Amino acid sequence: MSLLTIGTVAFDTIQTPFGRAEKVIGGACTYISYAASYFTNNINLSAIVGDDFPESEIEALENRGVNMDGLEIKKNGKTFFWEGVYHMDMNSRDTITTDLNVLDDFNPVLPHSYKHCKYVMLGNLTPQVQLQVLEQLDGNQKLIALDTMNFWMDIALDDLKKVLKKIDLLTINEEEARQLSGEYSLVKAAKEIHKMGPRFLVIKKGEHGALLFEDHKIFFAPALPLAEVFDPTGAGDSFAGGMMGYLAQKDRVDFKTLKKAIIRGSVMASFCVEEFSISRLKNLSKNDIKNRLQKFKKLTKF
Amino acid sequence: MSLLTIGTVAFDTIQTPFGRAEKVIGGACTYISYAASYFTNNINLSAIVGDDFPESEIEALENRGVNMDGLEIKKNGKTFFWEGVYHMDMNSRDTITTDLNVLDDFNPVLPHSYKHCKYVMLGNLTPQVQLQVLEQLDGNQKLIALDTMNFWMDIALDDLKKVLKKIDLLTINEEEARQLSGEYSLVKAAKEIHKMGPRFLVIKKGEHGALLFEDHKIFFAPALPLAEVFDPTGAGDSFAGGMMGYLAQKDRVDFKTLKKAIIRGSVMASFCVEEFSISRLKNLSKNDIKNRLQKFKKLTKF
Repeated sequence: MSLLTIGTVAFDTIQTPFGRAEKVIGGACTYISYAASYFTNNINLSAIVGDDFPESEIEALENRGVNMDGLEIKKNGKTFFWEGVYHMDMNSRDTITTDLNVLDDFNPVLPHSYKHCKYVMLGNLTPQVQLQVLEQLDGNQKLIALDTMNFWMDIALDDLKKVLKKIDLLTINEEEARQLSGEYSLVKAAKEIHKMGPRFLVIKKGEHGALLFEDHKIFFAPALPLAEVFDPTGAGDSFAGGMMGYLAQKDRVDFKTLKKAIIRGSVMASFCVEEFSISRLKNLSKNDIKNRLQKFKKLTKF
Repeated sequence: MSLLTIGTVAFDTIQTPFGRAEKVIGGACTYISYAASYFTNNINLSAIVGDDFPESEIEALENRGVNMDGLEIKKNGKTFFWEGVYHMDMNSRDTITTDLNVLDDFNPVLPHSYKHCKYVMLGNLTPQVQLQVLEQLDGNQKLIALDTMNFWMDIALDDLKKVLKKIDLLTINEEEARQLSGEYSLVKAAKEIHKMGPRFLVIKKGEHGALLFEDHKIFFAPALPLAEVFDPTGAGDSFAGGMMGYLAQKDRVDFKTLKKAIIRGSVMASFCVEEFSISRLKNLSKNDIKNRLQKFKKLTKF
């Protein structure tokens, strides 16, 4: 089934305790699309880059079955750039540079065929841009998922609340769930957030896994304990991509399918962190994914 | 099968964002024994209290099938007292008072029948006292489990390492696993800790669940997301008690049984935090436990 992914396509410079990667490929939409591509085809990307973005990387995404018609390439523009340094524990990081560049002018105009996509993943962007995308859809979507962050809760809460009314699934982290709801208990936070719109809530807890909520139902997906976490950048987006790719493949939206979907998301996140940038996500085999999935099954089965 | 539990029996004064409880019953050995009592009989407690400790509480434990022959009641002595205040997030706390009182003179002399117990749970005490207990056992134990804390790693590491050589299962929290091993990754930490002696390692992550390691095998037990955590005191000990009680009941020591055991431990911890002190652990029905176990199964099954 068709999947629309919207978000950033970017350059990242990343420093971790294990090394440094200069101006590598990043961006939420990139990670989402790669991760989803192992589960479904008919992926349609909407993003903006400058003409400094390598043609070969656009082709690489096309080769994974991603329709790039919705990628705006701005002449003489510079691609969004982020630089960050991870601390020893890999759970926290400092942002060194955020150059919005062309992202400042991102006014996504969806290609006509995109408007009918049944599954939509709105990556972390300003709520205004997310709204603008939603207004272009034909209204026949089966699931619209949204990622956001504390930054937008701080400076654009009203717009964010408007978006929340229009979506089916929200992914945020623990602290963001607490900030958005005003509740410390995640069970209570989920209740409040359901009231804001989303039928499904996924709370990402990084190395501690993820929680899925729908009404009174709760599911917990663990993260795979890894000997080496090389670079956490993109883990959350890979998670979202794996989840949405699986849902689009199955074309079913219910709690049972969602549970399986967030396990696939966790699988893709566990690959993502093994190498810098999208390196690991570019070169996975069906067997890699199958074996990793087995590890997740073993991890919690009793 | 017989279970020996050694540790503190205490008075606690506890303040949480939900209220205050003055001089209520606490102590690792108390929580361990109550939690274990729902899975096995033939529980043998070894601890020390002053004669200020209420007779009725000793009888309450006896009524749960706990043999109290090993409880030393010191004449004119005062029972160990701890006072703590939990922060809003309930994950961190400040200790206000620690009065060792009679615990300072705890030189456990095991009643003869205790020495043959097949399952042993050494609650958090000085490693010297834990060693002293181990030396009195008949050497035919099936599983010896030990709980400890960072404090002993700071001031009695050599003794702690001696104890670790003699035990089968260690329970510690994440930070303690990192401190003990010098490794940040819990997978690597487990490898180092296995080398120190324990075949099994349980890393307690509080609201994020627990990890079980044996060689290259890993199992993850979630914590139940709760709307209200009323008082976290004793959660780790209730976890240990549920786990050991189940192992003693099944009388089997292998990874498969351990997995089921730590789920029972998680069940007991989830009850423990619902009320102050041992209140909730005193009054559980078989059905309460069965229903809670079902919730855990639902939580991770996909």
